[in-house]
Amino acid sequence: MLAPTPPMGWNSWNTFGGKINEQVVKETADAFVEQGLKEAGYEYVVIDDHWEANERVDGRLVPNEKFPGGIKALADYVHGKGLKFGIYSCAGTHTCGGRPASYGYEEIDAQTFADWGVDFLKYDRCYVPSGVVAPPLYWRMGQALRATGRPILYSVCEWGKDKPWEWAPRAGAHMWRTTGDINDSWESVFKIGFERQVGLHSYAGPDHWNDPDMLVVGMHGKGNVAKGGCTDVEYRSHFSLWCLLASPLMIGCDVRAMSEPAREILLNTEAIAVNQDPLGRQGYRVGEFMHGSRPTPVWAKPLEDGSVAVGLFNLTDLDKRRVSVAWEAISIDPKRPCTVRDLWAHEELGVHTVEFTAQPPSHGVALLRITPQGAG
Amino acid sequence: MLAPTPPMGWNSWNTFGGKINEQVVKETADAFVEQGLKEAGYEYVVIDDHWEANERVDGRLVPNEKFPGGIKALADYVHGKGLKFGIYSCAGTHTCGGRPASYGYEEIDAQTFADWGVDFLKYDRCYVPSGVVAPPLYWRMGQALRATGRPILYSVCEWGKDKPWEWAPRAGAHMWRTTGDINDSWESVFKIGFERQVGLHSYAGPDHWNDPDMLVVGMHGKGNVAKGGCTDVEYRSHFSLWCLLASPLMIGCDVRAMSEPAREILLNTEAIAVNQDPLGRQGYRVGEFMHGSRPTPVWAKPLEDGSVAVGLFNLTDLDKRRVSVAWEAISIDPKRPCTVRDLWAHEELGVHTVEFTAQPPSHGVALLRITPQGAG
Repeated sequence: MLAPTPPMGWNSWNTFGGKINEQVVKETADAFVEQGLKEAGYEYVVIDDHWEANERVDGRLVPNEKFPGGIKALADYVHGKGLKFGIYSCAGTHTCGGRPASYGYEEIDAQTFADWGVDFLKYDRCYVPSGVVAPPLYWRMGQALRATGRPILYSVCEWGKDKPWEWAPRAGAHMWRTTGDINDSWESVFKIGFERQVGLHSYAGPDHWNDPDMLVVGMHGKGNVAKGGCTDVEYRSHFSLWCLLASPLMIGCDVRAMSEPAREILLNTEAIAVNQDPLGRQGYRVGEFMHGSRPTPVWAKPLEDGSVAVGLFNLTDLDKRRVSVAWEAISIDPKRPCTVRDLWAHEELGVHTVEFTAQPPSHGVALLRITPQGAG
Repeated sequence: MLAPTPPMGWNSWNTFGGKINEQVVKETADAFVEQGLKEAGYEYVVIDDHWEANERVDGRLVPNEKFPGGIKALADYVHGKGLKFGIYSCAGTHTCGGRPASYGYEEIDAQTFADWGVDFLKYDRCYVPSGVVAPPLYWRMGQALRATGRPILYSVCEWGKDKPWEWAPRAGAHMWRTTGDINDSWESVFKIGFERQVGLHSYAGPDHWNDPDMLVVGMHGKGNVAKGGCTDVEYRSHFSLWCLLASPLMIGCDVRAMSEPAREILLNTEAIAVNQDPLGRQGYRVGEFMHGSRPTPVWAKPLEDGSVAVGLFNLTDLDKRRVSVAWEAISIDPKRPCTVRDLWAHEELGVHTVEFTAQPPSHGVALLRITPQGAG
């Protein structure tokens, strides 16, 4: 099983877009080790679009001038750091950036990637010829990857268009995007994370994960698709939700130059443990209350030791809204005493029965681990 | 304004279907007075389908043999009780029961109804000729009713097919069905009431009301469309929600022979006062928590005196689920002391701040009136 827990890593797109090059990838791999990301579980260093030359050579994809050492050498470099290497292609005739893509070349390209030592393929959905149905194209690449004999994690990126949660696992996907692209704004996090992921939890599990797109934590308004940037409080809510969702944790910021708040968020080992819990259940929305048009939702993720990770979110524009979770709503007997631990403050909040209430700041979260006494 | 607050009355369909006759209507009008329904505000006695003869006479609708005295005499009888009289037709060529209907006869039929002293028209949507768009047909009858000069309450019944909340007020409707037919079962009440009415509250107000269909309270499994019947606890939840929704309160049971629990529900003047509150705002779902696939929702309806009517519903199959409402979620300052009154027990539950929690029985409700001290 390639992905018994949600994949963790970094992808070049959010910050670098078309400006990615060999040096950035190497320095990113270096930073994985130096910044403690590798130790925390981040593993895949993935190049997104724009690594490709504009023409194939002898029918094969080749890198452009920004990767003078070639992809195999770059993969070797990443492997040398004890990390894994990922790359990008597209199910259509061209990538979203207009580079040559894998339509009709699935077997050749899969073999090329395997020859280079690729461990991860993100497979996009631009320039699919009109009249061609997309899901079978994802199946073809899945078959082609399998035929290489090399274990390659298959990340389907068709933006949730054809309900990939219903068919992508059978196409060989380990993860599949559920929506269009995220960007570094609260509106985007709210819409993609808190609205569009509702109801999908039963489709995910070990080796097959819903993917609500990469993290924008730490972008601070930078990157080619940025639309203003989130606050650190908002990044914390975003990361907490992705952990509860058992989403792949693919960092999108420049990890060579992380802000201190971004490091603290991305390296919160207690939150990561929720994401990586071996039970592999995706969290779900237990309920929410509306305050005008903005909710205070509660999301919960059952964990292997019998405890439940719970996010009490205040998505309103007002500070310190009360947000409660009743034991009953997370399938715990109301009379059962439970320890409550705050996974951001890293402190115990005592033993409680019946329910627990927090008052998160506006756009903020209380991320808790609720453990029935006697369990865990 | 014909309907400054939601219309209240009775309709023959749920219990009598095609078996309606003159005598039943008269006895129903009698029962309105004798049973206290009139005093409680119930006003319209409405005959549904199957009053019509199979053929028009001189182009006019005429009643069938079950109404030997004619419709005008029957309307006079109802008026004689201080009540109002309603009738039924359909926008297609035939009614849903196959009787002649008003397509192409809108002006003639509207004038017939006005001549008879009709005060209320329910207008259905069967046998609309293929290719004919329905909303303009509702507009035509609305215009025809207006042209008679008689005030006739116009009840549009196109089952929510073409989002009537968006156009029915402009077609002259005072109320419009938002869904297909209800039946006397918990599943039907759950689906039509608790699921399908979410998000519609902003479309309703004085003289234009969303209509989630007639009440099944007191049917106890009788009636031609019954599917098992609800319990009294379920009837109470159903009635509470309809009051919070500012729905028309059209009784569907046989009011000549109401059970004692049905009388208590239909004549709960404190619940009716919520429905008839002059502010005329439709209640909305404040939020809900899921327990497996069944929720514990909270619905709230702001009232004219500054208090808020709140329904804490336990729609799960387990008894005594805790259901809470926070003052914040109903736009009251958490520190503000509020009196809480139970509108079914008819008793004060004390003065509270921050929130109030109840533990309703399975499928049950706590219907409250929460009044900030100093208001009301």
